[in-house]
Amino acid sequence: MPNRTAFFVSDGTGITAETFARAILKQFEISPKMVRLPFVDDADKAHQAVRQINHAAAVDGKRPLVFTTVVNMEVLDVLQRHCQGMLIDMFGTFIAPLEHELGMKSNHRVGRFSDVARSQEYHDRIEAINFTLEHDDGQTNANLEKSDVILVGVSRSGKTPTSLYLAMQFGLKASNYPLIPEDFERRQLPPALLPHKKKLFGLTIDPQRLSEIRHERRPHSRYASLENCRYEVREAEALMRRAGIPVLSTTHKSIEEIATLIRQSLEEREAH
Amino acid sequence: MPNRTAFFVSDGTGITAETFARAILKQFEISPKMVRLPFVDDADKAHQAVRQINHAAAVDGKRPLVFTTVVNMEVLDVLQRHCQGMLIDMFGTFIAPLEHELGMKSNHRVGRFSDVARSQEYHDRIEAINFTLEHDDGQTNANLEKSDVILVGVSRSGKTPTSLYLAMQFGLKASNYPLIPEDFERRQLPPALLPHKKKLFGLTIDPQRLSEIRHERRPHSRYASLENCRYEVREAEALMRRAGIPVLSTTHKSIEEIATLIRQSLEEREAH
Repeated sequence: MPNRTAFFVSDGTGITAETFARAILKQFEISPKMVRLPFVDDADKAHQAVRQINHAAAVDGKRPLVFTTVVNMEVLDVLQRHCQGMLIDMFGTFIAPLEHELGMKSNHRVGRFSDVARSQEYHDRIEAINFTLEHDDGQTNANLEKSDVILVGVSRSGKTPTSLYLAMQFGLKASNYPLIPEDFERRQLPPALLPHKKKLFGLTIDPQRLSEIRHERRPHSRYASLENCRYEVREAEALMRRAGIPVLSTTHKSIEEIATLIRQSLEEREAH
Repeated sequence: MPNRTAFFVSDGTGITAETFARAILKQFEISPKMVRLPFVDDADKAHQAVRQINHAAAVDGKRPLVFTTVVNMEVLDVLQRHCQGMLIDMFGTFIAPLEHELGMKSNHRVGRFSDVARSQEYHDRIEAINFTLEHDDGQTNANLEKSDVILVGVSRSGKTPTSLYLAMQFGLKASNYPLIPEDFERRQLPPALLPHKKKLFGLTIDPQRLSEIRHERRPHSRYASLENCRYEVREAEALMRRAGIPVLSTTHKSIEEIATLIRQSLEEREAH
Protein backbone atom coordinates (compact mmCIF):
# COMPACT_ATOMS: atom_id res chain seq x y z
CA MET A 1 0.00 0.00 0.00
CA PRO A 2 1.53 3.32 -0.98
CA ASN A 3 2.21 5.56 1.99
CA ARG A 4 0.70 8.98 2.37
CA THR A 5 2.67 12.21 2.80
CA ALA A 6 1.87 15.00 5.25
CA PHE A 7 3.20 18.48 4.52
CA PHE A 8 3.56 21.27 7.07
CA VAL A 9 3.48 24.53 5.12
CA SER A 10 4.07 27.90 6.74
CA ASP A 11 5.18 31.40 5.86
CA GLY A 12 7.02 31.41 9.20
CA THR A 13 8.99 28.68 10.96
CA GLY A 14 6.17 26.15 10.63
CA ILE A 15 6.55 25.12 14.26
CA THR A 16 2.90 25.87 15.04
CA ALA A 17 1.77 24.01 11.93
CA GLU A 18 3.87 20.99 12.85
CA THR A 19 2.80 20.93 16.51
CA PHE A 20 -0.81 21.14 15.45
CA ALA A 21 -0.48 18.56 12.67
CA ARG A 22 1.33 16.02 14.85
CA ALA A 23 -1.33 16.31 17.53
CA ILE A 24 -4.08 15.71 14.96
CA LEU A 25 -2.24 12.87 13.23
CA LYS A 26 -1.86 11.12 16.59
CA GLN A 27 -5.64 10.65 16.46
CA PHE A 28 -5.23 8.24 13.55
CA GLU A 29 -3.42 4.93 13.17
CA ILE A 30 -1.25 6.14 10.31
CA SER A 31 2.43 6.99 9.96
CA PRO A 32 2.68 9.36 7.03
CA LYS A 33 5.96 10.58 5.67
CA MET A 34 6.37 14.12 7.02
CA VAL A 35 7.78 17.02 5.01
CA ARG A 36 8.34 20.50 6.43
CA LEU A 37 8.11 23.52 4.19
CA PRO A 38 8.92 26.60 6.32
CA PHE A 39 9.34 30.20 5.12
CA VAL A 40 7.01 29.87 2.12
CA ASP A 41 6.40 33.60 1.97
CA ASP A 42 5.97 34.59 -1.65
CA ALA A 43 4.22 33.32 -4.79
CA ASP A 44 7.40 31.76 -6.21
CA LYS A 45 8.01 29.69 -3.12
CA ALA A 46 4.31 28.79 -3.06
CA HIS A 47 4.53 27.40 -6.60
CA GLN A 48 7.65 25.47 -5.60
CA ALA A 49 5.76 24.01 -2.62
CA VAL A 50 2.84 23.10 -4.88
CA ARG A 51 5.19 21.26 -7.24
CA GLN A 52 6.56 19.23 -4.34
CA ILE A 53 3.09 18.45 -2.99
CA ASN A 54 1.71 17.47 -6.38
CA HIS A 55 4.74 15.30 -7.05
CA ALA A 56 4.07 13.44 -3.78
CA ALA A 57 0.43 13.04 -4.79
CA ALA A 58 1.52 11.38 -8.05
CA VAL A 59 4.12 9.14 -6.36
CA ASP A 60 1.90 8.12 -3.43
CA GLY A 61 -1.25 7.67 -5.49
CA LYS A 62 -3.05 9.38 -2.59
CA ARG A 63 -3.51 13.05 -2.06
CA PRO A 64 -1.15 14.42 0.61
CA LEU A 65 -2.41 16.03 3.82
CA VAL A 66 -1.32 19.66 3.70
CA PHE A 67 -1.40 21.32 7.11
CA THR A 68 -0.91 25.03 6.74
CA THR A 69 -0.66 28.13 8.90
CA VAL A 70 0.02 30.45 5.96
CA VAL A 71 -1.46 33.92 6.46
CA ASN A 72 0.05 35.56 3.36
CA MET A 73 -2.98 35.80 1.02
CA GLU A 74 -0.93 35.52 -2.14
CA VAL A 75 0.67 32.27 -0.93
CA LEU A 76 -2.62 30.88 0.30
CA ASP A 77 -4.22 31.66 -3.04
CA VAL A 78 -1.57 29.66 -4.93
CA LEU A 79 -2.05 26.72 -2.57
CA GLN A 80 -5.83 26.82 -2.87
CA ARG A 81 -5.83 27.01 -6.64
CA HIS A 82 -3.07 24.57 -7.54
CA CYS A 83 -2.28 22.16 -4.73
CA GLN A 84 -3.65 18.64 -5.23
CA GLY A 85 -3.39 17.83 -1.53
CA MET A 86 -6.11 18.02 1.10
CA LEU A 87 -5.61 21.55 2.43
CA ILE A 88 -6.08 21.75 6.19
CA ASP A 89 -6.01 25.49 6.76
CA MET A 90 -5.78 25.85 10.53
CA PHE A 91 -5.75 29.65 10.49
CA GLY A 92 -8.12 30.46 7.62
CA THR A 93 -10.76 28.14 9.00
CA PHE A 94 -11.05 30.15 12.19
CA ILE A 95 -10.10 33.65 11.06
CA ALA A 96 -13.44 34.47 9.38
CA PRO A 97 -15.63 33.43 12.37
CA LEU A 98 -13.24 35.32 14.67
CA GLU A 99 -13.40 38.45 12.50
CA HIS A 100 -17.17 38.26 12.81
CA GLU A 101 -17.07 37.68 16.58
CA LEU A 102 -14.53 40.44 17.24
CA GLY A 103 -15.99 42.89 14.75
CA MET A 104 -12.60 43.58 13.17
CA LYS A 105 -10.45 42.43 10.28
CA SER A 106 -7.39 40.27 10.86
CA ASN A 107 -4.02 41.73 9.94
CA HIS A 108 -2.62 38.68 8.10
CA ARG A 109 0.64 39.13 9.92
CA VAL A 110 3.20 36.35 9.88
CA GLY A 111 4.37 35.59 13.42
CA ARG A 112 7.78 37.00 12.78
CA PHE A 113 10.69 38.12 13.85
CA SER A 114 12.41 41.41 13.47
CA ASP A 115 9.75 42.51 15.97
CA VAL A 116 9.71 39.30 18.03
CA ALA A 117 13.47 39.28 18.60
CA ARG A 118 13.35 42.79 20.10
CA SER A 119 10.19 42.34 22.19
CA GLN A 120 10.23 42.43 25.97
CA GLU A 121 8.63 39.00 26.16
CA TYR A 122 11.35 37.50 23.99
CA HIS A 123 14.08 39.26 25.97
CA ASP A 124 12.64 37.88 29.21
CA ARG A 125 12.55 34.38 27.79
CA ILE A 126 16.23 34.51 26.80
CA GLU A 127 17.04 35.88 30.25
CA ALA A 128 15.10 32.99 31.79
CA ILE A 129 17.13 30.48 29.76
CA ASN A 130 20.43 32.07 30.82
CA PHE A 131 19.33 32.26 34.45
CA THR A 132 18.23 28.63 34.39
CA LEU A 133 21.53 27.44 32.93
CA GLU A 134 23.49 29.38 35.54
CA HIS A 135 21.34 27.89 38.31
CA ASP A 136 21.43 24.31 37.07
CA ASP A 137 22.42 21.61 39.55
CA GLY A 138 22.98 23.99 42.46
CA GLN A 139 25.88 25.70 40.69
CA THR A 140 25.30 28.98 42.48
CA ASN A 141 23.16 30.52 45.21
CA ALA A 142 23.58 34.00 43.73
CA ASN A 143 20.26 35.66 42.93
CA LEU A 144 18.40 32.57 44.04
CA GLU A 145 15.59 34.86 45.20
CA LYS A 146 14.98 35.82 41.57
CA SER A 147 13.93 32.26 40.73
CA ASP A 148 10.31 31.72 39.82
CA VAL A 149 10.64 28.11 40.88
CA ILE A 150 13.33 25.95 42.52
CA LEU A 151 13.29 22.22 41.81
CA VAL A 152 14.86 19.68 44.15
CA GLY A 153 15.35 15.95 43.77
CA VAL A 154 17.95 13.21 43.54
CA SER A 155 20.39 13.12 40.62
CA ARG A 156 18.63 12.11 37.34
CA SER A 157 15.11 12.61 38.62
CA GLY A 158 14.41 15.00 35.73
CA LYS A 159 15.29 18.38 37.23
CA THR A 160 17.45 19.76 34.43
CA PRO A 161 15.26 19.03 31.37
CA THR A 162 12.21 20.23 33.30
CA SER A 163 13.98 23.45 34.33
CA LEU A 164 15.04 24.14 30.76
CA TYR A 165 11.56 23.50 29.45
CA LEU A 166 10.04 25.84 32.05
CA ALA A 167 12.46 28.54 30.90
CA MET A 168 12.24 28.00 27.18
CA GLN A 169 8.52 27.40 26.80
CA PHE A 170 7.08 29.36 29.70
CA GLY A 171 9.78 32.00 30.31
CA LEU A 172 10.14 30.97 33.97
CA LYS A 173 13.44 31.36 35.81
CA ALA A 174 14.00 27.86 37.17
CA SER A 175 16.79 26.88 39.55
CA ASN A 176 17.44 23.31 40.53
CA TYR A 177 19.31 21.61 43.37
CA PRO A 178 20.35 18.01 43.71
CA LEU A 179 19.55 16.27 46.99
CA ILE A 180 22.68 14.42 48.12
CA PRO A 181 23.72 12.09 50.98
CA GLU A 182 24.88 15.10 53.01
CA ASP A 183 21.31 16.42 52.96
CA PHE A 184 19.94 13.03 53.97
CA GLU A 185 22.28 12.87 56.95
CA ARG A 186 21.35 16.37 58.02
CA ARG A 187 17.69 15.39 57.37
CA GLN A 188 17.13 18.88 55.96
CA LEU A 189 16.93 20.64 52.62
CA PRO A 190 20.11 22.48 51.57
CA PRO A 191 20.22 25.50 53.92
CA ALA A 192 20.35 28.03 51.07
CA LEU A 193 16.88 26.89 49.99
CA LEU A 194 15.09 27.32 53.31
CA PRO A 195 14.19 31.01 52.81
CA HIS A 196 12.54 30.15 49.47
CA LYS A 197 10.14 27.46 50.57
CA LYS A 198 7.20 28.90 48.62
CA LYS A 199 9.11 28.41 45.37
CA LEU A 200 10.26 24.86 46.09
CA PHE A 201 9.00 21.90 44.16
CA GLY A 202 10.18 18.32 44.63
CA LEU A 203 10.66 15.75 41.88
CA THR A 204 10.76 12.08 42.67
CA ILE A 205 10.97 8.92 40.58
CA ASP A 206 10.48 5.19 40.87
CA PRO A 207 13.81 3.68 42.10
CA GLN A 208 13.71 0.96 39.44
CA ARG A 209 13.37 3.55 36.65
CA LEU A 210 16.04 5.74 38.26
CA SER A 211 18.43 2.81 38.33
CA GLU A 212 17.81 2.17 34.60
CA ILE A 213 18.50 5.81 33.76
CA ARG A 214 21.66 5.95 35.87
CA HIS A 215 22.93 2.68 34.40
CA GLU A 216 22.88 4.33 30.97
CA ARG A 217 25.24 7.01 32.27
CA ARG A 218 27.43 4.96 34.60
CA PRO A 219 26.96 1.26 34.01
CA HIS A 220 27.53 -1.07 36.98
CA SER A 221 28.32 1.79 39.38
CA ARG A 222 27.23 1.87 42.96
CA TYR A 223 25.55 5.19 42.00
CA ALA A 224 23.27 3.32 39.58
CA SER A 225 22.61 0.26 41.73
CA LEU A 226 18.99 -0.44 42.60
CA GLU A 227 19.92 -0.62 46.26
CA ASN A 228 21.42 2.86 46.25
CA CYS A 229 18.58 4.30 44.18
CA ARG A 230 16.07 2.88 46.66
CA TYR A 231 17.98 4.47 49.52
CA GLU A 232 18.26 7.89 47.87
CA VAL A 233 14.62 8.05 46.77
CA ARG A 234 13.36 6.96 50.18
CA GLU A 235 15.49 9.55 51.98
CA ALA A 236 14.68 12.30 49.49
CA GLU A 237 10.94 11.67 49.73
CA ALA A 238 11.06 11.68 53.53
CA LEU A 239 13.04 14.90 53.48
CA MET A 240 10.66 16.65 51.07
CA ARG A 241 7.63 15.43 53.03
CA ARG A 242 9.09 16.81 56.26
CA ALA A 243 9.75 20.12 54.52
CA GLY A 244 6.13 20.21 53.41
CA ILE A 245 6.82 20.98 49.75
CA PRO A 246 4.73 19.63 46.83
CA VAL A 247 6.23 16.51 45.24
CA LEU A 248 5.64 15.11 41.79
CA SER A 249 6.68 11.74 40.40
CA THR A 250 8.34 11.98 36.99
CA THR A 251 8.33 8.23 36.31
CA HIS A 252 5.48 8.16 33.80
CA LYS A 253 5.43 11.79 32.77
CA SER A 254 6.92 13.77 29.91
CA ILE A 255 8.76 17.02 30.64
CA GLU A 256 5.86 18.90 29.04
CA GLU A 257 3.48 17.35 31.52
CA ILE A 258 5.75 17.86 34.52
CA ALA A 259 6.38 21.49 33.55
CA THR A 260 2.66 22.16 33.06
CA LEU A 261 1.79 20.63 36.44
CA ILE A 262 4.45 22.76 38.12
CA ARG A 263 3.24 25.94 36.48
CA GLN A 264 -0.33 25.12 37.43
CA SER A 265 0.69 24.52 41.03
CA LEU A 266 2.67 27.81 41.12
CA GLU A 267 -0.37 29.71 39.81
CA GLU A 268 -2.55 28.11 42.46
CA ARG A 269 -0.07 28.94 45.21
CA GLU A 270 -0.02 32.56 44.01
CA ALA A 271 -3.81 32.74 43.95
CA HIS A 272 -4.04 31.73 47.63
CA MET B 1 -14.54 48.86 27.48
CA PRO B 2 -14.59 45.49 29.19
CA ASN B 3 -11.76 43.23 28.12
CA ARG B 4 -12.29 39.84 26.60
CA THR B 5 -10.96 36.57 28.02
CA ALA B 6 -9.36 33.77 26.00
CA PHE B 7 -9.33 30.25 27.49
CA PHE B 8 -7.04 27.44 26.40
CA VAL B 9 -8.80 24.20 27.34
CA SER B 10 -7.20 20.80 26.94
CA ASP B 11 -7.41 17.28 28.33
CA GLY B 12 -3.60 17.21 28.10
CA THR B 13 -1.01 19.87 28.87
CA GLY B 14 -2.73 22.46 26.68
CA ILE B 15 0.56 23.44 25.08
CA THR B 16 -0.73 22.77 21.56
CA ALA B 17 -3.93 24.68 22.28
CA GLU B 18 -1.98 27.64 23.60
CA THR B 19 0.56 27.69 20.74
CA PHE B 20 -2.26 27.57 18.23
CA ALA B 21 -4.38 30.17 20.02
CA ARG B 22 -1.53 32.64 20.44
CA ALA B 23 -0.69 32.38 16.74
CA ILE B 24 -4.31 33.06 15.77
CA LEU B 25 -4.74 35.87 18.30
CA LYS B 26 -1.66 37.58 16.84
CA GLN B 27 -3.77 38.13 13.72
CA PHE B 28 -5.96 40.57 15.65
CA GLU B 29 -5.24 43.84 17.41
CA ILE B 30 -6.55 42.63 20.76
CA SER B 31 -4.91 41.71 24.04
CA PRO B 32 -7.30 39.37 25.79
CA LYS B 33 -6.73 38.08 29.29
CA MET B 34 -5.45 34.53 28.88
CA VAL B 35 -6.46 31.62 31.12
CA ARG B 36 -5.02 28.12 30.79
CA LEU B 37 -7.11 25.12 31.76
CA PRO B 38 -4.95 22.00 31.29
CA PHE B 39 -5.80 18.40 32.25
CA VAL B 40 -9.57 18.83 31.87
CA ASP B 41 -10.09 15.10 31.40
CA ASP B 42 -13.42 14.16 32.97
CA ALA B 43 -16.97 15.52 33.16
CA ASP B 44 -16.46 17.02 36.63
CA LYS B 45 -13.47 19.04 35.51
CA ALA B 46 -15.38 20.02 32.36
CA HIS B 47 -18.22 21.45 34.45
CA GLN B 48 -15.68 23.31 36.57
CA ALA B 49 -14.12 24.77 33.40
CA VAL B 50 -17.57 25.76 32.14
CA ARG B 51 -18.28 27.60 35.40
CA GLN B 52 -15.04 29.56 35.03
CA ILE B 53 -15.75 30.38 31.39
CA ASN B 54 -19.33 31.44 32.03
CA HIS B 55 -18.26 33.55 34.98
CA ALA B 56 -15.80 35.39 32.70
CA ALA B 57 -18.59 35.86 30.15
CA ALA B 58 -20.72 37.54 32.82
CA VAL B 59 -17.88 39.72 34.15
CA ASP B 60 -16.56 40.74 30.72
CA GLY B 61 -19.97 41.28 29.16
CA LYS B 62 -18.51 39.58 26.07
CA ARG B 63 -18.36 35.90 25.36
CA PRO B 64 -14.88 34.46 25.93
CA LEU B 65 -12.87 32.84 23.14
CA VAL B 66 -12.45 29.19 24.09
CA PHE B 67 -9.65 27.49 22.17
CA THR B 68 -9.78 23.77 22.76
CA THR B 69 -7.88 20.64 21.78
CA VAL B 70 -10.04 18.34 23.90
CA VAL B 71 -10.48 14.89 22.35
CA ASN B 72 -12.34 13.26 25.25
CA MET B 73 -15.93 13.11 23.94
CA GLU B 74 -17.51 13.38 27.37
CA VAL B 75 -15.57 16.57 28.12
CA LEU B 76 -16.25 18.01 24.68
CA ASP B 77 -19.96 17.31 25.10
CA VAL B 78 -20.11 19.28 28.37
CA LEU B 79 -18.30 22.20 26.73
CA GLN B 80 -20.56 22.18 23.71
CA ARG B 81 -23.76 22.04 25.70
CA HIS B 82 -22.99 24.44 28.56
CA CYS B 83 -20.15 26.80 27.74
CA GLN B 84 -21.23 30.34 26.89
CA GLY B 85 -17.94 31.12 25.13
CA MET B 86 -17.17 30.94 21.43
CA LEU B 87 -15.86 27.39 21.11
CA ILE B 88 -12.93 27.15 18.71
CA ASP B 89 -12.47 23.41 18.43
CA MET B 90 -9.18 23.00 16.60
CA PHE B 91 -9.26 19.20 16.60
CA GLY B 92 -12.97 18.48 16.13
CA THR B 93 -13.17 20.84 13.18
CA PHE B 94 -10.66 18.78 11.21
CA ILE B 95 -11.20 15.28 12.58
CA ALA B 96 -14.40 14.55 10.63
CA PRO B 97 -13.02 15.59 7.20
CA LEU B 98 -9.83 13.65 7.97
CA GLU B 99 -11.81 10.54 8.96
CA HIS B 100 -13.56 10.80 5.61
CA GLU B 101 -10.30 11.34 3.70
CA LEU B 102 -8.45 8.53 5.46
CA GLY B 103 -11.38 6.14 5.52
CA MET B 104 -10.93 5.38 9.22
CA LYS B 105 -12.20 6.51 12.61
CA SER B 106 -10.04 8.60 14.91
CA ASN B 107 -9.06 7.08 18.22
CA HIS B 108 -9.81 10.12 20.43
CA ARG B 109 -6.55 9.59 22.23
CA VAL B 110 -5.18 12.32 24.43
CA GLY B 111 -1.53 13.01 23.56
CA ARG B 112 -0.33 11.59 26.80
CA PHE B 113 2.19 10.39 28.63
CA SER B 114 2.65 7.10 30.31
CA ASP B 115 3.36 5.98 26.74
CA VAL B 116 5.18 9.15 25.63
CA ALA B 117 7.64 9.09 28.52
CA ARG B 118 8.80 5.57 27.60
CA SER B 119 8.91 6.04 23.82
CA GLN B 120 12.15 5.92 21.84
CA GLU B 121 11.49 9.39 20.41
CA TYR B 122 11.14 10.85 23.89
CA HIS B 123 14.23 9.03 25.13
CA ASP B 124 16.24 10.40 22.20
CA ARG B 125 15.04 13.93 22.92
CA ILE B 126 16.15 13.75 26.54
CA GLU B 127 19.47 12.33 25.39
CA ALA B 128 19.81 15.24 22.95
CA ILE B 129 19.20 17.73 25.77
CA ASN B 130 21.82 16.07 27.99
CA PHE B 131 24.32 15.88 25.14
CA THR B 132 23.74 19.53 24.26
CA LEU B 133 24.27 20.67 27.85
CA GLU B 134 27.49 18.68 28.11
CA HIS B 135 28.73 20.18 24.84
CA ASP B 136 27.77 23.77 25.59
CA ASP B 137 30.44 26.42 25.15
CA GLY B 138 33.17 24.02 24.05
CA GLN B 139 33.19 22.27 27.43
CA THR B 140 34.34 18.98 25.96
CA ASN B 141 35.49 17.46 22.68
CA ALA B 142 34.42 13.99 23.79
CA ASN B 143 31.93 12.39 21.40
CA LEU B 144 31.95 15.49 19.24
CA GLU B 145 31.39 13.23 16.24
CA LYS B 146 27.99 12.31 17.65
CA SER B 147 26.78 15.90 17.24
CA ASP B 148 24.08 16.50 14.65
CA VAL B 149 25.22 20.10 14.41
CA ILE B 150 28.06 22.21 15.84
CA LEU B 151 27.51 25.95 16.21
CA VAL B 152 30.37 28.44 16.32
CA GLY B 153 30.36 32.17 16.95
CA VAL B 154 31.58 34.87 19.32
CA SER B 155 30.40 34.93 22.93
CA ARG B 156 26.70 36.00 23.18
CA SER B 157 25.92 35.55 19.52
CA GLY B 158 23.05 33.20 20.45
CA LYS B 159 24.74 29.79 20.36
CA THR B 160 23.49 28.41 23.68
CA PRO B 161 19.76 29.20 23.44
CA THR B 162 19.75 28.02 19.82
CA SER B 163 21.51 24.77 20.74
CA LEU B 164 19.04 24.08 23.53
CA TYR B 165 16.09 24.81 21.28
CA LEU B 166 17.46 22.47 18.60
CA ALA B 167 17.72 19.73 21.23
CA MET B 168 14.45 20.32 23.03
CA GLN B 169 12.18 20.99 20.07
CA PHE B 170 13.83 19.01 17.28
CA GLY B 171 15.73 16.33 19.24
CA LEU B 172 19.04 17.31 17.61
CA LYS B 173 22.35 16.85 19.42
CA ALA B 174 23.86 20.34 19.21
CA SER B 175 27.37 21.24 20.33
CA ASN B 176 28.61 24.80 20.38
CA TYR B 177 32.02 26.45 20.47
CA PRO B 178 32.93 30.03 21.22
CA LEU B 179 35.32 31.76 18.82
CA ILE B 180 37.95 33.55 20.88
CA PRO B 181 40.97 35.82 20.25
CA GLU B 182 43.26 32.79 20.14
CA ASP B 183 41.31 31.51 17.13
CA PHE B 184 41.48 34.94 15.46
CA GLU B 185 45.26 35.01 15.86
CA ARG B 186 45.61 31.53 14.44
CA ARG B 187 43.12 32.57 11.72
CA GLN B 188 41.58 29.11 11.97
CA LEU B 189 38.62 27.38 13.55
CA PRO B 190 39.40 25.50 16.78
CA PRO B 191 41.39 22.45 15.60
CA ALA B 192 39.01 19.94 17.21
CA LEU B 193 36.27 21.14 14.86
CA LEU B 194 38.13 20.71 11.58
CA PRO B 195 37.16 17.04 11.04
CA HIS B 196 33.47 17.95 11.42
CA LYS B 197 33.16 20.68 8.83
CA LYS B 198 29.92 19.31 7.38
CA LYS B 199 28.20 19.79 10.73
CA LEU B 200 29.48 23.32 11.34
CA PHE B 201 27.22 26.31 11.32
CA GLY B 202 28.30 29.87 12.11
CA LEU B 203 26.26 32.45 14.00
CA THR B 204 27.05 36.12 13.70
CA ILE B 205 25.43 39.28 15.03
CA ASP B 206 25.47 43.03 14.47
CA PRO B 207 28.30 44.48 16.67
CA GLN B 208 26.03 47.22 18.01
CA ARG B 209 23.46 44.67 19.18
CA LEU B 210 26.20 42.41 20.57
CA SER B 211 27.58 45.30 22.58
CA GLU B 212 24.10 45.98 24.04
CA ILE B 213 23.69 42.34 25.04
CA ARG B 214 27.16 42.13 26.59
CA HIS B 215 26.64 45.40 28.48
CA GLU B 216 23.69 43.78 30.25
CA ARG B 217 25.99 41.06 31.53
CA ARG B 218 29.17 43.04 32.17
CA PRO B 219 28.48 46.75 32.10
CA HIS B 220 31.33 49.04 31.03
CA SER B 221 33.72 46.15 30.41
CA ARG B 222 36.18 46.06 27.56
CA TYR B 223 34.44 42.77 26.63
CA ALA B 224 31.20 44.69 26.01
CA SER B 225 32.72 47.77 24.33
CA LEU B 226 31.54 48.51 20.82
CA GLU B 227 35.14 48.64 19.65
CA ASN B 228 35.88 45.14 20.90
CA CYS B 229 32.58 43.76 19.59
CA ARG B 230 33.37 45.20 16.15
CA TYR B 231 36.80 43.55 16.24
CA GLU B 232 35.50 40.14 17.34
CA VAL B 233 32.63 40.06 14.84
CA ARG B 234 34.87 41.13 11.95
CA GLU B 235 37.48 38.48 12.78
CA ALA B 236 34.91 35.77 13.39
CA GLU B 237 33.12 36.47 10.11
CA ALA B 238 36.40 36.42 8.18
CA LEU B 239 37.37 33.17 9.85
CA MET B 240 34.03 31.48 9.11
CA ARG B 241 34.10 32.73 5.52
CA ARG B 242 37.59 31.29 5.02
CA ALA B 243 36.45 27.98 6.47
CA GLY B 244 33.55 27.97 4.00
CA ILE B 245 30.81 27.21 6.52
CA PRO B 246 27.26 28.63 6.31
CA VAL B 247 26.75 31.73 8.45
CA LEU B 248 23.54 33.18 9.80
CA SER B 249 22.96 36.54 11.45
CA THR B 250 20.95 36.30 14.66
CA THR B 251 20.42 40.06 15.05
CA HIS B 252 16.78 40.20 13.96
CA LYS B 253 15.83 36.58 14.43
CA SER B 254 14.17 34.60 17.19
CA ILE B 255 15.72 31.32 18.34
CA GLU B 256 12.79 29.50 16.70
CA GLU B 257 13.66 31.06 13.38
CA ILE B 258 17.40 30.48 13.73
CA ALA B 259 16.85 26.85 14.73
CA THR B 260 14.45 26.27 11.84
CA LEU B 261 16.88 27.77 9.32
CA ILE B 262 19.67 25.58 10.68
CA ARG B 263 17.58 22.43 10.48
CA GLN B 264 16.51 23.31 6.95
CA SER B 265 20.12 23.85 5.93
CA LEU B 266 21.17 20.53 7.50
CA GLU B 267 18.43 18.70 5.62
CA GLU B 268 19.55 20.31 2.37
CA ARG B 269 23.19 19.40 3.00
CA GLU B 270 22.13 15.81 3.66
CA ALA B 271 20.07 15.71 0.48
CA HIS B 272 23.07 16.69 -1.66
